[in-house]
Amino acid sequence: MSWTVQETTFNQAQITTNGNKFMIGNGALGYRGTLEEFAKDQLTATTVAGLYDKVGDQWREPVNAPNGLATKLFANGRLLSVLETEPVSHTQELDIRHAKHRRETVFAVDGGTVTLQAERFVSMDSLNLIVARFSVTCSQPTSVMVETGIDGDVWDINGPHLEQYQSSVEGSAIVLQAITHELRLPVVVAEALVADSVQQVILQTDKTIMRKLLLDCEAGVTYTFYKYVAIAAGQDDAEPVQTAVAAVTDAMAVGYEAQLDKHTSQWESKWALSDVAIEGDEEAQFALRYSLYHLLIIAPTESEKVSIPARGLSGQVYKGAVFWDTEMFMLPFFLHTDPQVARNLMMYRVHTLDGARRKAAEYGYKGAFYAWESQDTGDDACTLFNITDVFTNRPMRTYFRDKQVHISADVANGIWQYYASTGDESILLDGGAEVMMECARFFYSYAYYKVDKQRFEILDATGPDEYHERINNNVFTNYMAEQTISSTLAMLTLLQDKHAGVFRSLVDKLDYEADIEQLKTMLAQLYVPKPDPQTHIIEQFDGYLKLEDVTLPELKSRIINPNEYLGGGNGLATTTQILKQADTVLALFMLGDRFSREVKKANWDFYEPRTEHGSSLSPCVYALIAADIGYSEYAYRYFMKTATIDLTGNSKQYVGTLYIGGTHPAANGGAWMAAVQGFAGVRIDTCTVKLSPALPPKWSAMKFNVQVLGQQFSVDVSKSEVRITSAETNRSSQLFRIGGAEVVCEAGQTVVQTY
Amino acid sequence: MSWTVQETTFNQAQITTNGNKFMIGNGALGYRGTLEEFAKDQLTATTVAGLYDKVGDQWREPVNAPNGLATKLFANGRLLSVLETEPVSHTQELDIRHAKHRRETVFAVDGGTVTLQAERFVSMDSLNLIVARFSVTCSQPTSVMVETGIDGDVWDINGPHLEQYQSSVEGSAIVLQAITHELRLPVVVAEALVADSVQQVILQTDKTIMRKLLLDCEAGVTYTFYKYVAIAAGQDDAEPVQTAVAAVTDAMAVGYEAQLDKHTSQWESKWALSDVAIEGDEEAQFALRYSLYHLLIIAPTESEKVSIPARGLSGQVYKGAVFWDTEMFMLPFFLHTDPQVARNLMMYRVHTLDGARRKAAEYGYKGAFYAWESQDTGDDACTLFNITDVFTNRPMRTYFRDKQVHISADVANGIWQYYASTGDESILLDGGAEVMMECARFFYSYAYYKVDKQRFEILDATGPDEYHERINNNVFTNYMAEQTISSTLAMLTLLQDKHAGVFRSLVDKLDYEADIEQLKTMLAQLYVPKPDPQTHIIEQFDGYLKLEDVTLPELKSRIINPNEYLGGGNGLATTTQILKQADTVLALFMLGDRFSREVKKANWDFYEPRTEHGSSLSPCVYALIAADIGYSEYAYRYFMKTATIDLTGNSKQYVGTLYIGGTHPAANGGAWMAAVQGFAGVRIDTCTVKLSPALPPKWSAMKFNVQVLGQQFSVDVSKSEVRITSAETNRSSQLFRIGGAEVVCEAGQTVVQTY
Repeated sequence: MSWTVQETTFNQAQITTNGNKFMIGNGALGYRGTLEEFAKDQLTATTVAGLYDKVGDQWREPVNAPNGLATKLFANGRLLSVLETEPVSHTQELDIRHAKHRRETVFAVDGGTVTLQAERFVSMDSLNLIVARFSVTCSQPTSVMVETGIDGDVWDINGPHLEQYQSSVEGSAIVLQAITHELRLPVVVAEALVADSVQQVILQTDKTIMRKLLLDCEAGVTYTFYKYVAIAAGQDDAEPVQTAVAAVTDAMAVGYEAQLDKHTSQWESKWALSDVAIEGDEEAQFALRYSLYHLLIIAPTESEKVSIPARGLSGQVYKGAVFWDTEMFMLPFFLHTDPQVARNLMMYRVHTLDGARRKAAEYGYKGAFYAWESQDTGDDACTLFNITDVFTNRPMRTYFRDKQVHISADVANGIWQYYASTGDESILLDGGAEVMMECARFFYSYAYYKVDKQRFEILDATGPDEYHERINNNVFTNYMAEQTISSTLAMLTLLQDKHAGVFRSLVDKLDYEADIEQLKTMLAQLYVPKPDPQTHIIEQFDGYLKLEDVTLPELKSRIINPNEYLGGGNGLATTTQILKQADTVLALFMLGDRFSREVKKANWDFYEPRTEHGSSLSPCVYALIAADIGYSEYAYRYFMKTATIDLTGNSKQYVGTLYIGGTHPAANGGAWMAAVQGFAGVRIDTCTVKLSPALPPKWSAMKFNVQVLGQQFSVDVSKSEVRITSAETNRSSQLFRIGGAEVVCEAGQTVVQTY
Repeated sequence: MSWTVQETTFNQAQITTNGNKFMIGNGALGYRGTLEEFAKDQLTATTVAGLYDKVGDQWREPVNAPNGLATKLFANGRLLSVLETEPVSHTQELDIRHAKHRRETVFAVDGGTVTLQAERFVSMDSLNLIVARFSVTCSQPTSVMVETGIDGDVWDINGPHLEQYQSSVEGSAIVLQAITHELRLPVVVAEALVADSVQQVILQTDKTIMRKLLLDCEAGVTYTFYKYVAIAAGQDDAEPVQTAVAAVTDAMAVGYEAQLDKHTSQWESKWALSDVAIEGDEEAQFALRYSLYHLLIIAPTESEKVSIPARGLSGQVYKGAVFWDTEMFMLPFFLHTDPQVARNLMMYRVHTLDGARRKAAEYGYKGAFYAWESQDTGDDACTLFNITDVFTNRPMRTYFRDKQVHISADVANGIWQYYASTGDESILLDGGAEVMMECARFFYSYAYYKVDKQRFEILDATGPDEYHERINNNVFTNYMAEQTISSTLAMLTLLQDKHAGVFRSLVDKLDYEADIEQLKTMLAQLYVPKPDPQTHIIEQFDGYLKLEDVTLPELKSRIINPNEYLGGGNGLATTTQILKQADTVLALFMLGDRFSREVKKANWDFYEPRTEHGSSLSPCVYALIAADIGYSEYAYRYFMKTATIDLTGNSKQYVGTLYIGGTHPAANGGAWMAAVQGFAGVRIDTCTVKLSPALPPKWSAMKFNVQVLGQQFSVDVSKSEVRITSAETNRSSQLFRIGGAEVVCEAGQTVVQTY
């Protein structure tokens, strides 16, 4: 079974797509899958998680650190670059098992050939380290010059973000440092090079520090050098230059192979926990693993100050902002494979609570209104004019920032899911309880009471279906708000019972006594749209069913400009029943067994043909419910659409000159959800693990691990039975419900249950 | 002092404008100021009040009756028409004192001249009658042929509205009848002609019936004929042909001069009640009288089933729909000059209450939600897509129909104003009470309660400033809703005290017992935006002050297409503080003395430069408050802008090929308001008539009559004193407050008070 994605030709048009497709990273750093000779025009990027900058009136976005891998090869005075010369042969590949990027290119030079091989990895062992190996082999004696070092002339969308560049030589390391424009934070890149007996000259320009290596290559001899690059940035490090220099000096001492071993071993551990093995479907297998790979390279394993942006660490796109994507589509994977990452993701929301409080206050509400586009401080990076109208070239007012209130429910729900899935109460004590309380309070403050109907309503909101803004009583929003209030009340009961001191001090600190009673009242009277008794359809929001019931092809036939936005004030979809993405159907998924199969089916049938899937978050939701209701073929098709999104690169890369591409971690997470929560049907319901397998026809079996309540289980699902092995290290039994049957799996035991 | 508006040249480009400018009418019929030889291409129209028709998917609009005045003159075989031949001389004029239209045109014919004179009036004495005189004088012997009769080939915007045409000769009358497309209502036009000793032939085609008169004209002899045209239409007449034929036969018997005398005498009575005489400013005098003329020709004097459409009876424009314009801008004039017309206007709302109930129910509300664009049934003619986007040519979703809820307050307020101004309780007993109750109930049903702020709010509404749709707590809307509730409660107390049986049966019929308590609660807790303690500015709606504070010139500089709509989803004004028309300032006017001069001034100063005056309803409101706060120059300028609107014709006439011109009765009414309520400062406050004169510098005096509580007063305002004469026919004394002084005027007496 292959773990390698590969291109065997060089195609200029694929540079951007390949930058995403061949990306490597370790959660702290992302390095785009560009080639060694590339620079900013090819969107080379070293994205530092959690580091943002803003220039002038433009939006804040992640900082792209100087490129410590910049390397150009000259043979007999001529630059060897795929951008300039068509190579004799070229291979670029990514080993997703061990997160190694490799390329091998053969250039014709003066009748002979020069072969360039390079391998690199962003160390999963030392999170500030990038390591590379570079080799040159000439078929005939050739005079080779290698220019390698640190290129600070980086790709910026709304830059320049770096200024006051300084370069220096520190022992065997070269260093390029700069500071960010807005917050004056240091960004330091150090590089150490190991190349036996080669002459070196060091060249410094405004924004670069490069070594020039001269090699008189003999025929057939391979000349190799190793680069150790460390990045130290941000406010947490008082001596970033020392840190970076020490890191590369130490790494150099350890050496390439040993560094690679440590890295590889970390990756083996990751796969041991997170792999999903599929039998009978190599294409699905690879796509799913590729999706998991993309989640693993961006997961914040050590920091709880960062979360995962909507485009991962694939560049400055989407402002590097963290959306609801993380809680809704990535969290489940980490909850069940690496709960520490899940905890970090949720702690990021704890650390940004004050930003959410500021936003609530800005709009006159109480509690916490989380940023629709969250960065380092939790203040909202989303503007009120987030889209440009193609017909007038004017900014278009959108209601993402101020009306997509479900974000606070998504966050509160994420914390509660973390607790429910891990049993780890510490997150509540470490700030999670406060987040939930403030989110619940926000919804009370946002809601209105309809006296003649004796109910609370949530008005003027935008749900996940952004084509319909400023709507009343959105199914998803109202249910998620209800969940937020009910889980907050349950959480408060838990605190009161088990951590009375914490409960008391939180209630006092937040002046929350009256809120508890208010929340109970609201929970009892909050309106949540119900299925129609005849049709079983839940109306996505008040008045949705009165909108024009147009088919998707008919709607598309009305498009005048291929780039026109279908939502917004005058958007084509706005006044119709066409939705951007799963909304009611997502609510059905979130609510698990609250609705019957009949209701799920009716709503899937109704909403699916009306969904434009204008978001990469949409197909996996349809896959999940399709698997649930026995729509096997649809489930598989939507799963594959989700799982292959970053492999095919079939998403929009540019709007005008603005790069909007990048990777799709929410879809990556959605692929895991569709497989494990969809096809295997894994759901946690108050300490019971439920499995309702519905394998795609092609799949003879699937195998994966899940962590539940701090214990590890291996699950093997075949066409007719489920085999569960409780890890030796587990301490207690676990109840499973498989199909209709309940089975208890004791620690270290295996149980088998047909379904 | 002139009462005549005149054009002394013929200008093809002015045909449409002159159609409005020279219009005549009597409230039941409107006849556009076109020339005798014109037809549908020149927008000739005979508009029948209250008669509507709809064809296919297009909108309902007034029916244009066959033109009974159609007349073409041929001399020596050649058509004499200003459209074909440049005349030697041409005069078109309108006598606004007696509502007579005259034209005189001299054509050169074969070396000599033929002079055509025509005079017409829409009888104010017999409301189904149009009378015309037509004369021909030739300078040399000329063979003249006159083709005159009834032309059924009418101008239609969204027609054809008439079908099944039939023509006939009934005694001396010719008749053209047809039925409307939608409701199959008869439309009959009869014509009788008196022309001494002239040969006649009658010619009938599909849609016309014409007489051909042959005259061998001698030099210098004037040949005259008279036309009597009657229109009978609609469902109330079982025998419309007989009615029309009888009408013209009778009219013919009475004769032209006698008919004209009766008509003139009616007009003299009208002016006696409604004229406002200005000393020292002929231009203003004429403009104001011209405005009053336009109100008088469209006032429903005999029918309480029709109201006044936004473009009067000037054609099919604006769907012939009745907007809030009537209550807010026309009602005051009629209240104080012809209360029977005011009563008819308000009774129209009583008769259309069921339509308002249907609309409320359609949107899930209780009570009465009046049509934004009301026609015969009270169902809403306004569509959800009322404007076409110039950039995409697509219909644009507007929130006039479903969110401009203040219409129900405007209606309720109109009824209460009628009662307060006339003391006539019968309107309450005849259905007005029920209208008010249902409107108040609607607001209760529409409002939401904000629990943490302990107040009712009115959310998601569109105020008079239509550039900002779907806003919360609009100043005008919330205050008007408050007024509706408080006046409804006051009205119910009045009923309970004086008409206990009616009160009881109404409460029972409407199941209103609980509503009364609910309305009291809502009145006590309804949020109405208050002036900021520092700036005194009342924020037009929640969040208005956070919108971009752009100047009007700057906003206009952003316009790409001169026809682009500034409101709607993506409109340029939508996201700025620029408003379409007076909104907060109108609320200040409606609330009279509730706010201090300081507050009025602060808000006038703030909102005036931000007002685009995209509605003809706007300038008069700024005039009214300007007069109130001593901004004499502004007041005069805005008054003149309002009073001259239909004289200059400087409003947009076409959007694409769609005619949107017509007269502006709301501005006409606004001119009266600015003069009498602004410059003379007349307001009624619980049985006291207040006057706060602030005459424009040019005006040495103004004189007018007002009717208050069923009594008639003549008011003469000079620069320093007010002289009030109570009519001999009055029965009781009346309290006036002039400036700071209170004076009592006994019946038949005159009082003088300096100010």
